[in-house]
Amino acid sequence: MKAYIDEHKERFTEELFELLRIPSVSTDSSYRKDVEKAAEFLANQLTKAGADNVEICPTPGNPIVYGEKLIDSELPTVLVYGHYDVQPADPIDLWHTPPFEPEIRNGKIFARGASDDKGQMYMHVKAFETMMATDNLTCNVKFMLEGEEEIGSVNLTSFVQANKEKLEADVILVSDTGMIAKDIPSITVGLRGLSYMEVEVTGPNRDLHSGLYGGAVMNPINAITKMISSLTNEKGEITIPGFYDTVEEVSAADREAMAKAPFDLDAYKAALDIKDVFGEEGYSTNERASIRPSLDVNGIWGGYTEEGAKTVIPSKAYAKISMRLVPGQDWEVISELFAKHFESLAPAGTTVKVTAHHGGYPAVIPTDSEAYKAASNAYEESFGTTPIPVRSGGSIPIVPMFKDELGLDSIMMGFGLNEDAIHSPNESFEVELYHKGIETIALFYKYFAKK
Amino acid sequence: MKAYIDEHKERFTEELFELLRIPSVSTDSSYRKDVEKAAEFLANQLTKAGADNVEICPTPGNPIVYGEKLIDSELPTVLVYGHYDVQPADPIDLWHTPPFEPEIRNGKIFARGASDDKGQMYMHVKAFETMMATDNLTCNVKFMLEGEEEIGSVNLTSFVQANKEKLEADVILVSDTGMIAKDIPSITVGLRGLSYMEVEVTGPNRDLHSGLYGGAVMNPINAITKMISSLTNEKGEITIPGFYDTVEEVSAADREAMAKAPFDLDAYKAALDIKDVFGEEGYSTNERASIRPSLDVNGIWGGYTEEGAKTVIPSKAYAKISMRLVPGQDWEVISELFAKHFESLAPAGTTVKVTAHHGGYPAVIPTDSEAYKAASNAYEESFGTTPIPVRSGGSIPIVPMFKDELGLDSIMMGFGLNEDAIHSPNESFEVELYHKGIETIALFYKYFAKK
Repeated sequence: MKAYIDEHKERFTEELFELLRIPSVSTDSSYRKDVEKAAEFLANQLTKAGADNVEICPTPGNPIVYGEKLIDSELPTVLVYGHYDVQPADPIDLWHTPPFEPEIRNGKIFARGASDDKGQMYMHVKAFETMMATDNLTCNVKFMLEGEEEIGSVNLTSFVQANKEKLEADVILVSDTGMIAKDIPSITVGLRGLSYMEVEVTGPNRDLHSGLYGGAVMNPINAITKMISSLTNEKGEITIPGFYDTVEEVSAADREAMAKAPFDLDAYKAALDIKDVFGEEGYSTNERASIRPSLDVNGIWGGYTEEGAKTVIPSKAYAKISMRLVPGQDWEVISELFAKHFESLAPAGTTVKVTAHHGGYPAVIPTDSEAYKAASNAYEESFGTTPIPVRSGGSIPIVPMFKDELGLDSIMMGFGLNEDAIHSPNESFEVELYHKGIETIALFYKYFAKK
Repeated sequence: MKAYIDEHKERFTEELFELLRIPSVSTDSSYRKDVEKAAEFLANQLTKAGADNVEICPTPGNPIVYGEKLIDSELPTVLVYGHYDVQPADPIDLWHTPPFEPEIRNGKIFARGASDDKGQMYMHVKAFETMMATDNLTCNVKFMLEGEEEIGSVNLTSFVQANKEKLEADVILVSDTGMIAKDIPSITVGLRGLSYMEVEVTGPNRDLHSGLYGGAVMNPINAITKMISSLTNEKGEITIPGFYDTVEEVSAADREAMAKAPFDLDAYKAALDIKDVFGEEGYSTNERASIRPSLDVNGIWGGYTEEGAKTVIPSKAYAKISMRLVPGQDWEVISELFAKHFESLAPAGTTVKVTAHHGGYPAVIPTDSEAYKAASNAYEESFGTTPIPVRSGGSIPIVPMFKDELGLDSIMMGFGLNEDAIHSPNESFEVELYHKGIETIALFYKYFAKK
């Protein structure tokens, strides 16, 4: 199969570029048409690659692309999941080249979605083409490609519930994560959950002149800064009552194993241009970003934010606040704890509105399953080294959902790198890993069929 | 003169509407042409009213309109100050009618600048016309109308310094303040100073994925909320070291006198739709907003602020923070204290940039001067009641500057009301007070000539 991939790699990249040129931003409704365009592109490519029963399944939101190739009911079945929607590109002005005009510079594809998740998802489509073309498809395969991952996969659960038979499989393959380094492959076996909230603090019923009222009324921005700052303490702990109650502590043994993964703190700080890291006392940087929960303000706004000065006490202030959760934490419970606590923080003279955007459960994947071993063998053959199992700080809420609804574990074969800057300006994806990923995925089928 | 005013009041209002239709927003350079248009309008009106040597004096910023009528060097000279620039109109969508399309509803003129300061400034032009037309001009008069008050009068000081002879006078008249109520006239005898700062907090050198980095690096928005919230304490005091060191405490006697001014706390809260007021312990609401300093965040922004959710740790967070100052406080000293302190608050993993926008000194005006008495008499004749001297929480930095540069006190004959909502959407000005103000100002000249 390697020969076929080498022979067609230019076309594989060109096709990905076509997909990257479609600004399928799911969080902003004005891109709705582009989202549909991306779905059609994938449906066509699946058909071309040889999939049967390809359909664009409508949902109340963005469509889900389905396709399958069932060769033998005796053989194991692989369900491939990926998402074709992307994060917004802003801040636009920080991009060196336009986010939706992909370009290769020093071996990297630069574009929004290059890594998350168009590039990684499309590897599966091309791996499928490769296996079909070289007569190497050794498992049944089903594709489920959604367009709402970046907004919480709001319609995927009901789709899965309504199509349990159609989606029957032995394992789910997901490439929406990263690896430790270009030459150090890793498989993600843990994900953090997510609770994403939005808060609105209202003071006076209208904007006021800060000279005439300053000092006499509670300013909603002053208030929101006090409320938010009290959510974490100087030890880097989250102060919401009950927040840690159900957190499953990771065993000393597992923490030791994690600590073996190569990590260079100085390089980490240098890459981010920061003098110091900050996080929960008693945990390493890797632990803080994977096995421990966190709370981040993702956005804040209120008052006058244009050029110059305006002496105003605004009527309202807003913030988007999200929490990453770890095994044991139920995102819906945490969302309620947050809302209850944040409302209780409202100072005299203010009112508070808290709304939950979306959330997801954390997940841990066993490393002793046939599927994990098949993935491990695949990496060993393509990379020449055994992949390291790692727990990621990111959230892929659909992974625990698949476990609940379909009883299936997801094998997260991620080929992204830290430098990919997903969700940031100048997102990129290594061309070499794009091709190596296609090869590794195809090899997974070979080993998984042998189980 | 009253007869003349009554006879021409419709035209007086129409002319003001013309001026209000010009969006002369000084803080936003894109309105530069409108600012010039407003200056030309005033120059023409002064000439029409009978002023001599009318000129539009260029400055490095917006022009200053000058005009004079010198009738007799034996008579006292009144220097009129006003500003024709206005605050931005945003948030636009909260206006019931377009901010630059003035309209009268239940006796109020609604438009940006209706009260602050086009309406109040234009009263002086019409009072001058009235005195000229009815042969009642009893003092020499000079007009100095600037277009940069809302951005700190950045070029006025150098203009005054360069034109000290031309601006020689016995008193300065300013109508850029308010009165207690429609039937309770008051004269502003105190103003707070201002120090307006902008802060930028930088964390990582790029936006980060909050899943992969959340909990491991200092988020600049989390950081800025902690920094800002620490600037004030639960007693409503400002915690910047040295902030209160030079504050002149107001005597118990003066506080008693102030307390006599009618004030209804329930009506105050009801008007703002707040359950409670908040401010420095040990002071009344009126005192908190006039004789005590304050610190307000006028604007804050950072991260993702659009529709939906984005799981990002932004690289930067920003805020505009202003402090109102009282007699004894030097705004340049306070700006330095703020900058030094705020920089010292930067948590590990962040860098901070503080810049000063502009500032102004506080002022207190004697109530035993001839000019104050003339103003008091004028109100008594037009309103039938003696005006109450009050200290305002607002800042008119040029008042202390005039004292320094020209050695002149400013008599602040303000006709605005709290309900005018200056600096807010739906700014308004009472039509009746507009006409009554013209009459009262004209009467000031009568009494001041008798001194």
